[in-house]
Amino acid sequence: MTRERLYLFDTTLRDGQQTNGIDFSVDEKIAIVELLERLGVDYVEGGYPGANPTDTAFFSEKRTKSAVFTAFGMTKRAGRSVSNDPGVQALLDARSDAICFVAKAWDYHVRVALETTNEENLVSISESVEAATAAGREALVDCEHFFDGYKANRDYALACAKAAYDAGARWVVLCDTNGGTLPNEVREIVADVARVVPGDHLGIHAHDDTGQAVANSLAAVEAGCRHIQGTLNGIGERCGNANLTTLIPTLLLKPAYAERFETGVGEAALKDVTAISRAFDEIVNRTPDIHAPYVGASAFATKAGIHASALLKDPQTYEHVAPETVGNRRRVLVSDQAGKSNLIGELKRLGIEVDRKDPRLDTLLADVKEREALGYAYEAADASFELLARRRLGEVAGYFDVKSFRVMVERRFNAIGELVTVSEAVVKVDIDGETRMSVAEGNGPVNALDIALRKDLGKYQSIIDEMELIDYKVRILNGGTDAVTRVLIESQNKRTHKRWFTIGVSGNIVDASFQALIDSVTYTLLKAGI
Amino acid sequence: MTRERLYLFDTTLRDGQQTNGIDFSVDEKIAIVELLERLGVDYVEGGYPGANPTDTAFFSEKRTKSAVFTAFGMTKRAGRSVSNDPGVQALLDARSDAICFVAKAWDYHVRVALETTNEENLVSISESVEAATAAGREALVDCEHFFDGYKANRDYALACAKAAYDAGARWVVLCDTNGGTLPNEVREIVADVARVVPGDHLGIHAHDDTGQAVANSLAAVEAGCRHIQGTLNGIGERCGNANLTTLIPTLLLKPAYAERFETGVGEAALKDVTAISRAFDEIVNRTPDIHAPYVGASAFATKAGIHASALLKDPQTYEHVAPETVGNRRRVLVSDQAGKSNLIGELKRLGIEVDRKDPRLDTLLADVKEREALGYAYEAADASFELLARRRLGEVAGYFDVKSFRVMVERRFNAIGELVTVSEAVVKVDIDGETRMSVAEGNGPVNALDIALRKDLGKYQSIIDEMELIDYKVRILNGGTDAVTRVLIESQNKRTHKRWFTIGVSGNIVDASFQALIDSVTYTLLKAGI
Repeated sequence: MTRERLYLFDTTLRDGQQTNGIDFSVDEKIAIVELLERLGVDYVEGGYPGANPTDTAFFSEKRTKSAVFTAFGMTKRAGRSVSNDPGVQALLDARSDAICFVAKAWDYHVRVALETTNEENLVSISESVEAATAAGREALVDCEHFFDGYKANRDYALACAKAAYDAGARWVVLCDTNGGTLPNEVREIVADVARVVPGDHLGIHAHDDTGQAVANSLAAVEAGCRHIQGTLNGIGERCGNANLTTLIPTLLLKPAYAERFETGVGEAALKDVTAISRAFDEIVNRTPDIHAPYVGASAFATKAGIHASALLKDPQTYEHVAPETVGNRRRVLVSDQAGKSNLIGELKRLGIEVDRKDPRLDTLLADVKEREALGYAYEAADASFELLARRRLGEVAGYFDVKSFRVMVERRFNAIGELVTVSEAVVKVDIDGETRMSVAEGNGPVNALDIALRKDLGKYQSIIDEMELIDYKVRILNGGTDAVTRVLIESQNKRTHKRWFTIGVSGNIVDASFQALIDSVTYTLLKAGI
Repeated sequence: MTRERLYLFDTTLRDGQQTNGIDFSVDEKIAIVELLERLGVDYVEGGYPGANPTDTAFFSEKRTKSAVFTAFGMTKRAGRSVSNDPGVQALLDARSDAICFVAKAWDYHVRVALETTNEENLVSISESVEAATAAGREALVDCEHFFDGYKANRDYALACAKAAYDAGARWVVLCDTNGGTLPNEVREIVADVARVVPGDHLGIHAHDDTGQAVANSLAAVEAGCRHIQGTLNGIGERCGNANLTTLIPTLLLKPAYAERFETGVGEAALKDVTAISRAFDEIVNRTPDIHAPYVGASAFATKAGIHASALLKDPQTYEHVAPETVGNRRRVLVSDQAGKSNLIGELKRLGIEVDRKDPRLDTLLADVKEREALGYAYEAADASFELLARRRLGEVAGYFDVKSFRVMVERRFNAIGELVTVSEAVVKVDIDGETRMSVAEGNGPVNALDIALRKDLGKYQSIIDEMELIDYKVRILNGGTDAVTRVLIESQNKRTHKRWFTIGVSGNIVDASFQALIDSVTYTLLKAGI
């Protein structure tokens, strides 16, 4: 059976730019275009030339190698010709392959926002499209607020779509600008529109305001659309746009779509989607969503004891798609609910082979459960877990012994009468029977303690110097006066860039931090093979 | 037209506990139950008694006032009687109103995971349900992997569902355990199941692995289900469960559902959903998703430009629902004018009337923006905000002046050779020209500082004695070495039970805590009318 072609249109650099906190520079846009071309989208909407200097500069050259490089802007203003409309001229000046005009399709907006008549708006649409095609550009029209416009005045919304199509637009895109349309409504409305604009010229642009941007996009495709607009990692204003890193794997891996449609994304590109998603987060300094479908770090991570044993036997019965197909991996986490199977699986992953009947396993499992009831969360602290396991199995040497420490935070006036806060720590450590004392200042009590602890560790110093603290997280458990503090520290080896997490739990935050620090130092020495 | 009843089942405390990084303590579960009852869900699945110590302890009492308190566990093991099955016994021992049994519905799992026959599994289902109802509990059955099981062996999956229903289960819940089923498939399959189990006994439990948990839940309802399972903020393993904070507003505000169904959530509870969502994030120290539908801080935030002026004229044409209906608010992010309106609104809410043209407003606005860029979150710290505002408006007296403080945490051996950690704080305070010094010990540096600070405040002592610290939350912003610590303290007046929040931000955690403490003490004195 011949499959139909589905076109993917990325608007990360245009609609995605509306995201609170995101403002791409030209360099960032160039880097993102590279990611988009790796992914294999058909269109890259680069921005809004004329609206701001960055976008105008970005369109001074064509930036894509294979994707259709698209410029976005408004239809011609009413009451003026195309040649007298600076917005349209900016679009024609842009070095793009295509121009996507956003047009009003709701009569209310035509009247209140554009302050013109319905007929004038139709003329604006037609003349804008004609100007683009006359200049050798592919023309697209985004029918803004289309679904609300259709509900308010069906005939007019259809007229707008038809005007765009009749004038020669390659794609008429139905936009759910408010994001509030439901999949059934999308399906019905798109089916109706497909009677005046054929499906192979229809596109969908959905937003996630009811958590259904993906569902709406797929519903539109089922009703006839052959063009989907979305963004990387679903960024976009308010609740975001349709997430391409969710849509693409779904379209390629679910038979309901894969058997009927093909896209510009090949199998190799699909395997690259997780890496692309993470690279995008790095470029925009966005905290990755570990729960994101397909690409999230936890997308294939499971805790439950119930599943683990069966999972390892036949992953297909527990995973809806194989993680490798999207470049991700399976993770089985250790936690309060871990069964023995989970534990054995985790130990194996750490390179520790233990026989299922080994009695030390039961003790370790009980250890983990008891400590987790106290607040330790080993699924988040791999290195602390490994230390616990290896200690229980008798494998960890006593590298050093902290005999005592003292941390002081003082707020007082300095010599010139300014109020300052200083933190100082003193640590006393025993290595091979020799005692060393170190003192250090830091920007807080934990920082001071860390510096003092790692300042002079004798024969271990060169190894410890490779370690650095990357991140520090605190959580108060049980709240109120019986509060217990859980501290998670992320450390990194500066040379190998390997990272690890350690944990500490105590009623005293300095004590909890100290535990996590000690674990990190011990782990560094363990991994150095001493 | 009479509306049908839709039942909402929350599994935050059970399936939600599978989330990577989440492990509720008993106290946290109790606090979350309170939120769930505020919301108005019909069922609260509290956990898995017998599987871990926390859950067993949690079920030692009934924890809900109106919601059906539900215990989760497995169906009876094959080859033994109910009375010889410790898992089922643990469920019967739990102080719950209902028991939800998870049952296999996929013949492959029956064979490989349970290692028994299809017939034995049906017996396990029936006998488990009968045991629950005989003990006076409502029985529910979660048919695990139902949709995959149905696709593999339709007859057997239906037989499992029917066995549960015939045995007397109040609800037979179809679980998309892998999360990979698509809405159209859900719709068709549910419609088929509804022929053996009536829709008013059918439930749906969806996961978000293709980004369609909400769409799947709604599709199931359209096909006949009258029971939806989900979690607060969509937490859950891998990509999460169906998000109740997305589903509930959709069900109550979209006519397609609101006209046909009613739930246990009233209009007032709906207005509370944003606050409930945020309170949940606070309890589990989860970074809020600002883009979450309806409840996210950015759900109704727009970057202006094209929309802003028209938006303010008629929000209905730009917002799919009114933010106030879900207790959220509109944010227009760019103009100073919009910022000022927000500020005036906030001050009014605190009982402070300021003229729009008052120049001190501009300074206060700049102050707030600058401090928020540093990490202060005044949205979460009403009392600190009020102090900032009143200080700027010249209204706060200088009650006392902390000249200096010193906090020390020491870990050392005590007289009998035990390793102990002690925390001591010294505070020097100036009141009306007279200096007082206090020292105190505490279970941590902040606790010691709090006790020392409030130990001797001269003429203010009797008022300060009415104040107590209820909760203390720490968040590290910006991570890494440039980390800034934000501390939120919740305090209470022991006499009036009025509560308030104060905030402190600093690179030094003790300093940040100190700021929040000082604000709380000052606020107490301000409110006492001195």
